[in-house]
Amino acid sequence: MDKILRIDMGADGGPKFSEEPLGDYAGLGGRIMTSTVVAKEVDPMCHALSAQNKLVIAPGLLSGTTAVMSGRISVGCKSPLTGTIKESNAGGQGAQVMARLGYAAIILEGKPKDDKIYKLLINKDGVKVETAEDLKFLGNYATVEKLVSQYGDKITCLSIGSAGERKMGAASIAVTDMEVRPTRHCGRGGTGAVMGSKGLKAIVMDDTGCDMRPPKDPDAFKEANKAFVAGLKKHPVTGEGLPAYGTNVLTNVLNEAGGYPTRNFQTGRFDGASKISGETQAELETSRGGKATHGCHRGCIIRCSGTFNDKNGNFLTKQPEYETVWAHGGNCGIDDLDAIALMDRLDDDFGVDTIEMGATIAVAMEAGLAKFGDAEAAINLVKEVGKGSHLGRILGNGAAVTGRVFGVERVPVVKGQAMPAYDPRAVQGIGVTYATTTMGADHTAGYAVTANILGVGGKVDPLKPEGQIELSRNLQIATGAVDSTGMCLFIAFALLDQPETFQALIDMINAFYGLSLTADDVTAMGKQVLKTERDFNTRAGFTKEDDRLPAFFKNEKLPPHNVTFEVKDEELDQLFNF
Amino acid sequence: MDKILRIDMGADGGPKFSEEPLGDYAGLGGRIMTSTVVAKEVDPMCHALSAQNKLVIAPGLLSGTTAVMSGRISVGCKSPLTGTIKESNAGGQGAQVMARLGYAAIILEGKPKDDKIYKLLINKDGVKVETAEDLKFLGNYATVEKLVSQYGDKITCLSIGSAGERKMGAASIAVTDMEVRPTRHCGRGGTGAVMGSKGLKAIVMDDTGCDMRPPKDPDAFKEANKAFVAGLKKHPVTGEGLPAYGTNVLTNVLNEAGGYPTRNFQTGRFDGASKISGETQAELETSRGGKATHGCHRGCIIRCSGTFNDKNGNFLTKQPEYETVWAHGGNCGIDDLDAIALMDRLDDDFGVDTIEMGATIAVAMEAGLAKFGDAEAAINLVKEVGKGSHLGRILGNGAAVTGRVFGVERVPVVKGQAMPAYDPRAVQGIGVTYATTTMGADHTAGYAVTANILGVGGKVDPLKPEGQIELSRNLQIATGAVDSTGMCLFIAFALLDQPETFQALIDMINAFYGLSLTADDVTAMGKQVLKTERDFNTRAGFTKEDDRLPAFFKNEKLPPHNVTFEVKDEELDQLFNF
Repeated sequence: MDKILRIDMGADGGPKFSEEPLGDYAGLGGRIMTSTVVAKEVDPMCHALSAQNKLVIAPGLLSGTTAVMSGRISVGCKSPLTGTIKESNAGGQGAQVMARLGYAAIILEGKPKDDKIYKLLINKDGVKVETAEDLKFLGNYATVEKLVSQYGDKITCLSIGSAGERKMGAASIAVTDMEVRPTRHCGRGGTGAVMGSKGLKAIVMDDTGCDMRPPKDPDAFKEANKAFVAGLKKHPVTGEGLPAYGTNVLTNVLNEAGGYPTRNFQTGRFDGASKISGETQAELETSRGGKATHGCHRGCIIRCSGTFNDKNGNFLTKQPEYETVWAHGGNCGIDDLDAIALMDRLDDDFGVDTIEMGATIAVAMEAGLAKFGDAEAAINLVKEVGKGSHLGRILGNGAAVTGRVFGVERVPVVKGQAMPAYDPRAVQGIGVTYATTTMGADHTAGYAVTANILGVGGKVDPLKPEGQIELSRNLQIATGAVDSTGMCLFIAFALLDQPETFQALIDMINAFYGLSLTADDVTAMGKQVLKTERDFNTRAGFTKEDDRLPAFFKNEKLPPHNVTFEVKDEELDQLFNF
Repeated sequence: MDKILRIDMGADGGPKFSEEPLGDYAGLGGRIMTSTVVAKEVDPMCHALSAQNKLVIAPGLLSGTTAVMSGRISVGCKSPLTGTIKESNAGGQGAQVMARLGYAAIILEGKPKDDKIYKLLINKDGVKVETAEDLKFLGNYATVEKLVSQYGDKITCLSIGSAGERKMGAASIAVTDMEVRPTRHCGRGGTGAVMGSKGLKAIVMDDTGCDMRPPKDPDAFKEANKAFVAGLKKHPVTGEGLPAYGTNVLTNVLNEAGGYPTRNFQTGRFDGASKISGETQAELETSRGGKATHGCHRGCIIRCSGTFNDKNGNFLTKQPEYETVWAHGGNCGIDDLDAIALMDRLDDDFGVDTIEMGATIAVAMEAGLAKFGDAEAAINLVKEVGKGSHLGRILGNGAAVTGRVFGVERVPVVKGQAMPAYDPRAVQGIGVTYATTTMGADHTAGYAVTANILGVGGKVDPLKPEGQIELSRNLQIATGAVDSTGMCLFIAFALLDQPETFQALIDMINAFYGLSLTADDVTAMGKQVLKTERDFNTRAGFTKEDDRLPAFFKNEKLPPHNVTFEVKDEELDQLFNF
């Protein structure tokens, strides 16, 4: 991981690549790498789909090592969905493989002069860029299948579906899992559209013959990793809840808390919740020969993923995540796990963010395009996205655009990005994160559900404004750091409650790089990430007025608690005071 | 004009109206009235289609008097197209009639609780609000026809077509002309969508039995009006060019100057220009028994309008304006006046801004939905807007949304509003206006074409950045004042070149109101308008980064002069230093 691969997609005569040393970017990984490069090299005022934008792909600082959980890959750019800087990360095999191939970052620049599409091939022998006309407008599944038939089943792919090629604002970048299926996605913010605008359909990596990245101090590293594993195993969320039921364990929890946004954020409780809960889902999966627990990349010990088979016992899709089940489920009034899983599969195949799509369909339902609860109609709407019909183009550009096109007032977005599965009125801490994060509405940016609902990392009353700013601020800072390590964010549950597990992570970094970082240094890294991103957004014209929830969260009370979002604007403006 | 009519469209049991004295709004008219009310009463962060937005309609300070040219009616709100404050004004009979009925402003508030549509009836005997279900989704022509059959041909209507009912961002408000045809439009910024969101289909006014508004000093007023008329008659633009050929006299002028945006701003000269020029248009109109000169309201002496008959000599539409002929013509590579006139008619009937629609179709052409130059395809695209199909919904929401949906990079908008018929690279002064005006790209807000191209009000080289800021600033200030008087902006040609004509306007205001304003006072009023609007936009989250042209104007050279937009960002930031 000592070099950068830079590819000029707009070079005369076709894409040209070059390798360069890390230079100013030495010591960076994951989100701090992508955000630093984007902030330094991309004009914040450029059009996100123009040659001036860049797509930066980076494994985390610990990716490609034997550290458990280190499989997150970050993708950064100026977002076509939000206009802000964007970092979106995913699991799957991408980070590990790219790191072992030696690349700390791939930077895509320019724009092809023709309308050909290309693939990027990387293995231990080197790099090639070739045309890939045979992949044009294929779904991610067919794309990966074709690439496997050409390059063997040891490959790891990053690819876009038709949505990315059509430059839709909800377009994702798929990352293949251990079974070489395109099931893990850098979902949020339209990174797939930027990859599409650069004419790149797929990155095919094969790390056969590459070694694990060696730590400076192997013994200390091994020891720290062991302590880290023990910490994760010990914590009830990472050791029990997530392995057993996956992220969808949250459906019953959020529904019970009255913070489960239902029918386009009209209420906070869904009468069909139990039919789509993680418990029900795990049982259904197991009964059909699927897996209720499964790791999305090698080295995962939480194993919160799974496989969802159809009624005939054939693989349909990976276990849909909580936010997906919510987006296509309760948020659309739908309580049918098969329908939800099919939409998850379609989303993955077309290459769109499941959160954005579900939120968009709920807005479309509000506009009268389908009835809340009509699963078949919802599936058909998703299919329109794959067809690239006019309606599909609208929906594929997300909730904000769909709201604009159909004149809908209740559109739950911040900075143009749809809110995930936690109503900010009943989980006010997450509302602060939605409003203020540099990313547009994003739960992962500062997951205040911890202290608001789960009793992890302290307790803060979810229905009151007190303490939410500090909670969200601290989480956003910590997340900036974790997202840079390549570690799955779910380690944070254990980190927040167990100081020794946090120390084990720091010990791993120190042992690997021969450093002597303290907890303060890690916090400083998180702060640097946020400041870099915030500065980009300011230069792109974002102000405190963009750090607001849509007005209806202040004006409409959410049942059953009948609460509005109570955190004051002036308080929101304090979030970045650190 | 001593009272305000306030209508709560969301009142229980249906819309309720009330009348109130002017209070704080005394002495205001036209744009300074609408912008002051919106800035004071509307939350800049509200959703433009929500109950919290208000639609303010105001005749100018001199409307309803015997002053020539005083027929502009202003409509203001928070714009659903731009998110900024919006003032859009139109000719026709509306201002005169409303002023004589005694209303300085109509303020629409709230939102109906049902999805009924309503009409507002005003005559000398009073006000009524009634349901108007029979008008639902009718075009403006059928709407007005029906209203005439019900209320007689002495009425004046403000109405919305299907686009406004569908809350499209390009939706206009139609104002009837002397022949009670819905040909004059408050076109820009989606004011029709706000009227639609309030459930109001039409305002029907009848001033039968109402008197002209009496001046405080009738003799001085008459004298000033006479001097004012003489000034307008004397100036070559208002006395000759506009009467003879209408605004479309500009096609040849701008094309010659290389500033005629062609095929979605790809070049600055159109080879089909002579086929759609004002000269050609006037000849065609005359040959078919139409009128090449005609006033859009009583009291107009410039008479820059006209009537366009079809091949059989039947009325098709009013004489399309220069910007319309450009938008549906050269900007789409179309050189067929009949096709352009048909699109003008369709736009007026559906109730959409011709500039936004033409710019949108050019963006759609760039996206591959039709070929540049294909008039039939363009007409069909406009028809989709009337149908309210998914494609029509996209297009009806304007160029920015259409660019987003189809992933187009070259989208000529500022603050989400399409640029009119002057390329900012070859007419750099108008580029400054586009970038900085509070309205989103709008030529009328500071018509620097005067000194850049027409040699009116001085001369400033159109291809160079020097002097453009000062030029645009002065024009924007002057326009803020003129738009408040109810005077047609075309009087500015004479005002800029003839101090005595400017003085005659001030004399009219003074004689009418018994005031002793100076030129400085008028300038102060213009400044106040801009500051009020700018403050609203700042509170809505707009910053200097929003005062920029899209990047391609800096990166792509415009033939034939091969120039880019050269005014520096730091200079643009000086515009509001006054």
